Amino acid sequence: MAYDADETRRRILAAATGEFSAHGLAGARVDRIAASAGCSKERLYAHWGDKEALFTAVLNHSFAELGEAASADFASAEDFAVAIFDHLSENPTNHRLLGWARLEQRHDWTSSFAVLDSVRATSVGQLDRLVDQRDQRVPWSPHDLFALVLSIASAWMQLPGLPDDQADQPAPDVQRAIVREAVARLLGSR
Amino acid sequence: MAYDADETRRRILAAATGEFSAHGLAGARVDRIAASAGCSKERLYAHWGDKEALFTAVLNHSFAELGEAASADFASAEDFAVAIFDHLSENPTNHRLLGWARLEQRHDWTSSFAVLDSVRATSVGQLDRLVDQRDQRVPWSPHDLFALVLSIASAWMQLPGLPDDQADQPAPDVQRAIVREAVARLLGSR
Repeated sequence: MAYDADETRRRILAAATGEFSAHGLAGARVDRIAASAGCSKERLYAHWGDKEALFTAVLNHSFAELGEAASADFASAEDFAVAIFDHLSENPTNHRLLGWARLEQRHDWTSSFAVLDSVRATSVGQLDRLVDQRDQRVPWSPHDLFALVLSIASAWMQLPGLPDDQADQPAPDVQRAIVREAVARLLGSR
Repeated sequence: MAYDADETRRRILAAATGEFSAHGLAGARVDRIAASAGCSKERLYAHWGDKEALFTAVLNHSFAELGEAASADFASAEDFAVAIFDHLSENPTNHRLLGWARLEQRHDWTSSFAVLDSVRATSVGQLDRLVDQRDQRVPWSPHDLFALVLSIASAWMQLPGLPDDQADQPAPDVQRAIVREAVARLLGSR
């Protein structure tokens, strides 16, 4: 079988996503990524450059998935919030990468933060349109509303504590219903 | 001047708090902590044990400060939310340590998570009492209400993005007013 460069790149990216999501940039080990992708460290570097370049590629890919989830055609701000909740709870890897990106950020990660800026612009635009369309009255800018909605959509995931404590959390369906109701109350929809 | 062991321990803890808050457990460097505290690595290890033991000591200290902020005598759930907002925005180090503890957590950090559990129990108890006292109707358990209130209190701090983007954020007084209003809407107080 001929060597498939695209397939190798894809396998490295998938392995790196798991490693960086679990350990962050500082804690990740390139040799574990290479072993998990079944290639040598030299090949990994040839494909992706250094560890930090690979990390920003992982972030870009992850943020783009979040952006896709935020770009659907929603009927209400509540639906938008639930879609963000669903995306992050079904993709805990993406939620953890958002956390690492916030804590480990470097000023030269411009490409990743350009993707993130576009996710934010999309989300703020969606909320602005949806609130306006339903004639809801909120005293906050769409940017501040986005901060509140995103925080509510990730309320349980953000809770500090051991993974064992997750047993205390309500089931996903219950969390989803609470997110919907909380955003409805925030918007004065009830 | 005699060697003051308590003072050395305190200096190391302060230096470690800055280093771990900036870089997390994996990214922190013990030699930078020792240099910043003005002692040798050997002395640091003699006082605090290994790097992980020092990290959990930093977490315990930080979580205890948050617990103190959550233990005041509040008149309303809105006041509780604003106090958490004030504590975390005035102590960004403590907010970052909560983030690192969530992402880098190990199952053997039992002492740190015991402190955190006690912060959570205090907070859940406060919210339960305050909502009941004002006869507010919320369809959620005090535990879920705590998840929502904590997330709203840290909405802007949790926003992913570059520190430069902080320029887009509303001033602290404006954020504080939004937190109060958002929690009031959540509780149906308006």
